[in-house]
Amino acid sequence: MPADTAADPLVVFTPSGKRGHFPVGTPVLTAARQLGVDLDSVCGGRGICSKCQITPAYGDFAKHGVHVAADALSDWNSVEDRYDRIRGLPKGRRLGCQACVQGDVVIDVPSESQVHRQVVRKAASDRTIVMDPATHLYYVEVAEPDMHEPTGDFERLGFALRDQWGVDRVTAPLPVLRRLQPALRKGGWAVTVALHKGHRDEAHRILDIWPGFYEGRIYGLAIDLGSTTIAAHLTDLRNGTVKASAGVMNPQIRFGEDLMSRVSYAMMNPGGDIEMTRVVREAIDALAVELATEAQIDARDIMEVVFVCNPVMHHLLLGIDPVELGQAPFALATSNSLSLDATELDLTALNPAARVFILPCIAGHVGADAAAVALAEAPEMSEDLVLIVDVGTNAEILLGNTTRVLACSSPTGPAFEGAQISAGQRAAPGAIERVEIDPVTKEPRFRVIGSDLWSDAPGFDAATATTGITGICGSGIIEAVAEMRMAGLVDAKGLIGSAEQTGSPRMVAEGRTHSYLLHDASPTGGPRILVTQGDIRAIQLAKSALYAGARLLMDEMGVDHVDRVTLAGAFGAHISPRHAMVLGMIPDAPLDKVTSAGNAAGTGARIALCSVAARTAIEATVRKITKVETAIAPRFQEHFVNANAIPHATDPFPYLAGIVSLPDVSFNQGGGNDGGRRRRGR
Amino acid sequence: MPADTAADPLVVFTPSGKRGHFPVGTPVLTAARQLGVDLDSVCGGRGICSKCQITPAYGDFAKHGVHVAADALSDWNSVEDRYDRIRGLPKGRRLGCQACVQGDVVIDVPSESQVHRQVVRKAASDRTIVMDPATHLYYVEVAEPDMHEPTGDFERLGFALRDQWGVDRVTAPLPVLRRLQPALRKGGWAVTVALHKGHRDEAHRILDIWPGFYEGRIYGLAIDLGSTTIAAHLTDLRNGTVKASAGVMNPQIRFGEDLMSRVSYAMMNPGGDIEMTRVVREAIDALAVELATEAQIDARDIMEVVFVCNPVMHHLLLGIDPVELGQAPFALATSNSLSLDATELDLTALNPAARVFILPCIAGHVGADAAAVALAEAPEMSEDLVLIVDVGTNAEILLGNTTRVLACSSPTGPAFEGAQISAGQRAAPGAIERVEIDPVTKEPRFRVIGSDLWSDAPGFDAATATTGITGICGSGIIEAVAEMRMAGLVDAKGLIGSAEQTGSPRMVAEGRTHSYLLHDASPTGGPRILVTQGDIRAIQLAKSALYAGARLLMDEMGVDHVDRVTLAGAFGAHISPRHAMVLGMIPDAPLDKVTSAGNAAGTGARIALCSVAARTAIEATVRKITKVETAIAPRFQEHFVNANAIPHATDPFPYLAGIVSLPDVSFNQGGGNDGGRRRRGR
Repeated sequence: MPADTAADPLVVFTPSGKRGHFPVGTPVLTAARQLGVDLDSVCGGRGICSKCQITPAYGDFAKHGVHVAADALSDWNSVEDRYDRIRGLPKGRRLGCQACVQGDVVIDVPSESQVHRQVVRKAASDRTIVMDPATHLYYVEVAEPDMHEPTGDFERLGFALRDQWGVDRVTAPLPVLRRLQPALRKGGWAVTVALHKGHRDEAHRILDIWPGFYEGRIYGLAIDLGSTTIAAHLTDLRNGTVKASAGVMNPQIRFGEDLMSRVSYAMMNPGGDIEMTRVVREAIDALAVELATEAQIDARDIMEVVFVCNPVMHHLLLGIDPVELGQAPFALATSNSLSLDATELDLTALNPAARVFILPCIAGHVGADAAAVALAEAPEMSEDLVLIVDVGTNAEILLGNTTRVLACSSPTGPAFEGAQISAGQRAAPGAIERVEIDPVTKEPRFRVIGSDLWSDAPGFDAATATTGITGICGSGIIEAVAEMRMAGLVDAKGLIGSAEQTGSPRMVAEGRTHSYLLHDASPTGGPRILVTQGDIRAIQLAKSALYAGARLLMDEMGVDHVDRVTLAGAFGAHISPRHAMVLGMIPDAPLDKVTSAGNAAGTGARIALCSVAARTAIEATVRKITKVETAIAPRFQEHFVNANAIPHATDPFPYLAGIVSLPDVSFNQGGGNDGGRRRRGR
Repeated sequence: MPADTAADPLVVFTPSGKRGHFPVGTPVLTAARQLGVDLDSVCGGRGICSKCQITPAYGDFAKHGVHVAADALSDWNSVEDRYDRIRGLPKGRRLGCQACVQGDVVIDVPSESQVHRQVVRKAASDRTIVMDPATHLYYVEVAEPDMHEPTGDFERLGFALRDQWGVDRVTAPLPVLRRLQPALRKGGWAVTVALHKGHRDEAHRILDIWPGFYEGRIYGLAIDLGSTTIAAHLTDLRNGTVKASAGVMNPQIRFGEDLMSRVSYAMMNPGGDIEMTRVVREAIDALAVELATEAQIDARDIMEVVFVCNPVMHHLLLGIDPVELGQAPFALATSNSLSLDATELDLTALNPAARVFILPCIAGHVGADAAAVALAEAPEMSEDLVLIVDVGTNAEILLGNTTRVLACSSPTGPAFEGAQISAGQRAAPGAIERVEIDPVTKEPRFRVIGSDLWSDAPGFDAATATTGITGICGSGIIEAVAEMRMAGLVDAKGLIGSAEQTGSPRMVAEGRTHSYLLHDASPTGGPRILVTQGDIRAIQLAKSALYAGARLLMDEMGVDHVDRVTLAGAFGAHISPRHAMVLGMIPDAPLDKVTSAGNAAGTGARIALCSVAARTAIEATVRKITKVETAIAPRFQEHFVNANAIPHATDPFPYLAGIVSLPDVSFNQGGGNDGGRRRRGR
């Protein structure tokens, strides 16, 4: 605490407003630390790291009741001079460890000098996530060995970390220990260490060591390991900046498109789980290298990885046979968060001592990815009742507010991701992602990933010449089906009408069913893109599962409407809320209350990467979440069957009805035989 | 605590004498636990493990004030009957978890039912070491998964360990986690785990897991990793029994005989340390397999390894370049004890999750082997001042009592181990290990390892026919030099007399010096075994270093005599105290106060393997030991020079003088020229 003698100069820090009286000669950094002002320092006030830059303000500050004289701080000194000469100090800046208090002064701490910068701010919650990563760089000066008081170099490093940084209980893996003695001697008994704060009661661990003051940066990976896609963000661990992002297909896809087919593969093929573990680990390692290359950093500077994933991906990542997850009671091998060495997962491209943190699983079907969504979206802090839907091959659904949070998962299958769709493909350049169908002419127009132009705009052909038009992705098929329903090409049961019934020459008969020709084969060899009856059925199954899961949680909560809906997931970000509502994917809600949260699981992974407090918080939240098992709930089947209609048949949808009026058409299978298009009274 | 209602039956346990009143129907095991009586149980009182066998006593027990009626315990029950039928229960025994208190009773706990059996009792100290190993087997019954309250199987195992065994904070490496789900299901939701108690604040760790109740045993290795020899004891971790012992040469010998030549090798050859690390780890792995084979166990049942070793061996084992240990200030990379995975040391023959504990080093020249000697000999508990000398290539010397303990090491070189001796060899069958020289005839007789017969006994030739007589080992050369001195063949300066000077035809002229023919070449091809002037010089250097180290500690302690001397080390066990005193290896002391402690470092390793309390205790002791650095002490050089004479020239040796009178001879180099043997007055 500051001495706070009124006779001593007053020091006011902005933007925090923290203030106190300090004796003349007190370094600004010291005053900041005593007041708990967030002013960074890596070198511990030795004028090496320049992280403690501050901007003194001069003049009258009525607000603070202070007049700051020109000599309120000690003169610019040789350390600052040298730093300015070599690296440059922005105009008006001083080094907080060098500038000393001489009189009343107002000091601004610029955001880049704050350690605990906000990295993720969620508008939906009151929370802000501040930088508080598990791994920090510390510069330490270590006592030299003394023959008369023999102690190991490592033990003296431990004393120095304790005395200079207040860090206790430090360990180091053998390869780091091996490099300790040369580093200390090369650095003149000073080293910089990358120190990893152990999770919960684990000891601190030195992950890397450099002689003297290390100028470099350290990084972390936030990885959303999905059944279909592995997405990773390479993040600067000092400030949370994302340096590079990339995604690759999960190579396990060749063992099965969806989760259950991978579990089956493991059950039917002895060693199959080991094979799937190997390929996913290899893919992650390669992805780390790709990101490091893109960001032009050394992959060895990646010190940490945070994983979020569903339970089957979780077990396969860990090398645990997921067979129990394929059958009731869906027992997880382990549900708590995990803190591991990256080498335990055969991740060898990273720093050899890199650590891995895996978020906790909520239940056998509701994984660490759902926990990450909960971390990012914080339903437990929401005053209004929010439904959060993370759409993927398996949909994770959260429903809650400050009183209670429920979770379940629903087996939507891969249709929403473009699989099981005749012209389906993953979201990549060339894929149709937006669709509109004129309700009068029944003619479509669409947009393709890689171009902002609609297909009827001038220049579209040129804009898509390089990618071509290769298929339709998840968001595209949802819009196509919803637009077909709105245009009267599909009835409430999901049947596609014939050319005769609909009056559209785009309807193509295929056996007893019909398809809609969205795009004809290009002269350049691109495929014909149809929406088939099978596609509609696949989407109906997927959306029914999704809706039934949400409805089950609403039953459990005892409500029949929700205040707002958040669409999460990389895919969720691309879904049009209006089309999702037309399809009946989600419960009826005001359109402006249906929002996209982007890749919330990925955001949750980034939050956990940047904040150890968030790791602890999500563990507590997960324990409090009520888990609802869809597989054994009879009402789930009931909701599922009732949700088959487009939109669903069970609940009223006044909000949707206020936006669109859906044509009251009905088509028989086989088409044409029931007299074509007819109107029915409600 | 027991209810202790005087109306309830009285239960008295022997041999502890613990007693209390317990309600009728209380199982004996429950009563024992409540009283803190040491009664074993692996299955937690489920009648499976039979570890809680007790023997009730009947009749009048005046000493305890109890009459025990024949029905003092409940009837023999079906669980006991089944156990007796299948495995046999010794007569008079009951299972403590089945037999219930019905009336006043006296219960004897046989030693094999005590968990905390004494494993090592040191006569020299008040301490007894009781079994308290880091790794225990626990049988646990785990709750089945519940879809409505989803938790991981591992988390439920953790709850079970907490509730049934009071063990908290449990982790498991991934390969064990992988085996958890099948084991739980195969064992009907009961498993046996090998649980390793983490050192200090480490979490508990599950090293292995078996379905149901595991009948097998688990083992540990206590390894004394010497510069010359690696000695290991395979120990049953339930009771401390040594199942097999073996030693192999340290393969690093090919990089240098002694420690400093290995440090030099590392300095001169980039990567040389890595090579030495590799070969020693391979040798240890092979030794583990050899021991397991000998004991007819699976090496995978070895759960723990405890290492003691000198600092250079310590660093090379850990993969740390020992170069700093070769030069002042002899800084250790790390001095504290270490708790590691065996795989970190590339030990792959053991259980994949096996743990390693390495005792702390005392100083840059005084290693974990010296700490182990301190653990075994406990100088800090000795009322009288004890000098403990662990003789090896490097001698570790401890001096202390309850007030203070000092430690140093002294570079004796490998002469005491038979190296640098013309006919030297390591202690193996065929090596001369005992020598006597008749003071009148100057004729020798000797004993050879592998036979109990002296060389002048009938049948000696036949007894040694298979081994031959191949050389002279460390204890043999010490006796030979001391005997030569006593027989007047060597003078106080260490010069060997000529045939003329000594009157013995066994003196062989070699240039300007002489040798003593201990054993002529055998007709069967065995070598001629001579004690040369060079051999005497090598022994003089070694013993001077040893004596100077001891003397330096005595200076530091401010004493000029010690109360007793303990010769430690595998080699120390074979040294004749009388000959050591004649040679002047050790300070003068009453002959009956010079004793051998056998391989004290190895004993210390075994103690640490069997007792986690001992691990903590030796860490505390090591911190309190005063380290004395011989390399920089000017008085060490002084003592070294003065100790060259046989015995030494500095201190009086009244105790030795009371036993032997040493011929007052003096020989010039070159022999014969100074008139042969002459007497000098004192």
